[in-house]
Amino acid sequence: MICDNISVKDGVLYFAGANTVELAKEYKTPLYLMDENKIRNNCRVYLNAMNKYFGANAMPLYASKAASFKKIYEIMKDEGMGIDVVSSGEIYTALKAGFNLKNAYFHSNNKTDEDINFAMENGVGYFVVDNKEELDAINQIAKERSLTQSILLRLTPGIDTHTYEAVNTGKVDSKFGTAIETGQAEKMVEYTLTLSNIKLCGFHCHIGSQVFESDTFIRGSKIMLEFIATVKAKFGFVTEQLDLGGGYGVRYLDSHPTIDIADNIRQVAECIKSTAAELNIEIPKILLEPGRSIVADAGMTLYTVGTVKEITGYKNYTSIDGGMTDNPRFALYGSPYTILPASRMNDTADFVSDVVGRCCESGDIIQKDVTLPKAKRGDILAVCTTGAYNYSMASNYNRITRPAVVMIKDTKPYVAVKRESLEYLTENDI
Amino acid sequence: MICDNISVKDGVLYFAGANTVELAKEYKTPLYLMDENKIRNNCRVYLNAMNKYFGANAMPLYASKAASFKKIYEIMKDEGMGIDVVSSGEIYTALKAGFNLKNAYFHSNNKTDEDINFAMENGVGYFVVDNKEELDAINQIAKERSLTQSILLRLTPGIDTHTYEAVNTGKVDSKFGTAIETGQAEKMVEYTLTLSNIKLCGFHCHIGSQVFESDTFIRGSKIMLEFIATVKAKFGFVTEQLDLGGGYGVRYLDSHPTIDIADNIRQVAECIKSTAAELNIEIPKILLEPGRSIVADAGMTLYTVGTVKEITGYKNYTSIDGGMTDNPRFALYGSPYTILPASRMNDTADFVSDVVGRCCESGDIIQKDVTLPKAKRGDILAVCTTGAYNYSMASNYNRITRPAVVMIKDTKPYVAVKRESLEYLTENDI
Repeated sequence: MICDNISVKDGVLYFAGANTVELAKEYKTPLYLMDENKIRNNCRVYLNAMNKYFGANAMPLYASKAASFKKIYEIMKDEGMGIDVVSSGEIYTALKAGFNLKNAYFHSNNKTDEDINFAMENGVGYFVVDNKEELDAINQIAKERSLTQSILLRLTPGIDTHTYEAVNTGKVDSKFGTAIETGQAEKMVEYTLTLSNIKLCGFHCHIGSQVFESDTFIRGSKIMLEFIATVKAKFGFVTEQLDLGGGYGVRYLDSHPTIDIADNIRQVAECIKSTAAELNIEIPKILLEPGRSIVADAGMTLYTVGTVKEITGYKNYTSIDGGMTDNPRFALYGSPYTILPASRMNDTADFVSDVVGRCCESGDIIQKDVTLPKAKRGDILAVCTTGAYNYSMASNYNRITRPAVVMIKDTKPYVAVKRESLEYLTENDI
Repeated sequence: MICDNISVKDGVLYFAGANTVELAKEYKTPLYLMDENKIRNNCRVYLNAMNKYFGANAMPLYASKAASFKKIYEIMKDEGMGIDVVSSGEIYTALKAGFNLKNAYFHSNNKTDEDINFAMENGVGYFVVDNKEELDAINQIAKERSLTQSILLRLTPGIDTHTYEAVNTGKVDSKFGTAIETGQAEKMVEYTLTLSNIKLCGFHCHIGSQVFESDTFIRGSKIMLEFIATVKAKFGFVTEQLDLGGGYGVRYLDSHPTIDIADNIRQVAECIKSTAAELNIEIPKILLEPGRSIVADAGMTLYTVGTVKEITGYKNYTSIDGGMTDNPRFALYGSPYTILPASRMNDTADFVSDVVGRCCESGDIIQKDVTLPKAKRGDILAVCTTGAYNYSMASNYNRITRPAVVMIKDTKPYVAVKRESLEYLTENDI
């Protein structure tokens, strides 16, 4: 199985120890499932390995954009995770969960004045500053509020991770951050140190997403440490924090590799220690920003089949009751997914079809060329590894209401996010 | 200008006669604008031409998925348009607007039992039936409700429109409809005529989207009429309605052609008359389903610039306060858009940059390589022709609230959809 929280009993798929067919019946479909134990375990892998190898002050920040709702922040609070937030919406949701925003890092390439004010008003610990205009705006607003805002500067180390373009953010040519290679990053540091209401605490980089190569973070951390040494030498600036971003890949298919995250962290820590020694600099507090690797394999989506279409001489289509509205990742990136016949796990899989959504749009596809037992109306299909970037990217296209999120803890389900009602959908219409 | 509802006065962009910079100030950004007069005019082009050339019983159905909210249906009701709906959400919204659902046609490749029940309960006039499982479900539910449901069958005429794959729905290999070419459509008619609680009224096809070639609808209507003649000969079935779908293209760029829709309709009508005469069949009531061509050029989106990034030797980025959350069409399809510097229309446009959104995602791009006056934080940018598939496809990715829709009638603005609040965003979180 693609993940150890998936099993089969009497031909029925179980997720996090719960019977998926019964869940589909009780909560209806489409339905997002989230495995609370798995989320907590994934957090602990980072917490333990980072404390062990980077030291007690190291901290993983959960990258909220992967999946943001109240319950997630309650779990992060419990586990002692920090968080990375990118909007007033994420800050507000974390607040509602009682999350202590001192451990929140505010990202995004374009923070509006309204966002900056909102974040300061609610005591967000750190801003990860993308560019000069933003820096000036933060300094100005901090001045108006008579406070000093702690920040990291987001830098681009110029690494091409060879992942697909839309999620490749570490190269020099990026909408994110300030490039080290062009000399612009150094100038930004020099400038930042002149600002009255800004406390520069360190630097951030994000190399890419779905990264499997173990040397990517090593290369990134080397470049960042060299930069830290440079600005120490040039400006006498001592870096307190180094945030290496997120990006560890997860398995969407059985053919994808498994990453030993703890061992990867050990390797990065070794590199950081030796490089820091070589460069004669103090090792800063290390931060990482896992998002996908915290929640992706803690998620599964259940759908009900509506129809199976066989077009003689062409292709077959299996239509489900959700689609690009609850999971736009195939439409956006052609992302791979594993699909399982939840109600018929022991049946022979000998029917190849595209699993498509219910939207009035040809591109509404969950996955092409999927081999399953030939489905019939009412069968339940499960799409695996949907915990990241599914609920958070969902839309109401075709005026379709978004599914509920049902969390499973110790095999017992509970609703974490209610299914949208038609009344909710039209609440803002005048 | 890309559309006749756009003008410039004292260096400021006007849309539908209203000052866009003042609108941005009053209603904040990002902001969807919709030109009510333009929507009504676009409806009247179809209404007048269809009545003139197809006869008094012809009817355009507004394809709701292009933009669905209460006010739109009020306009459609006023103008005497029918509607094409694809979900309970669209049906519910139309109901709230007091739209008479006798003139609603219920589409989608996968209607759930819940949708079918909801549509029947609310008296939706016609179901456009995609496939056999759905047909059986509709017949069964109609039986349970002791009613006879009027339907059209959706057929695929097998035309390749050479538009890009995601919106190409008329070819045989499609998730939509039943293929004529394979003989499956004929069998569907034969089968449908045996069902106790179904009244077959006619046929539907949808050839594609953004179609500019004038012969596409002519080819489509010929194939459909030949099919109508065949089923008349074989089964004695007289077709009452022929729905030729939607698909007329709109101009996103100055380089795009202008379509004379009335003249196109005249040409299609001529073909229908001569073909029907040749085939010796009655001309059915003709329906068309314009969506994009009703609302696209009635829309504009306003954004505020946050930052301009110049990466020496690489590229420039202009970041705005919206992006793929309110307009995912570049991320999904690489769609072209015209962007105007709303506050600086008389300034020299000599700065080339990618106009990118505020999401934490590299693929969050509105348009690449746009030439504008070099922007500064606070400048207003206007993206033209965003009335279709922008509001309706919007998401809360990055937990960003969706913009308001401000409608302009006779140069006067009013709110049609309220901006989402943080409270609304978290209303379903438990």
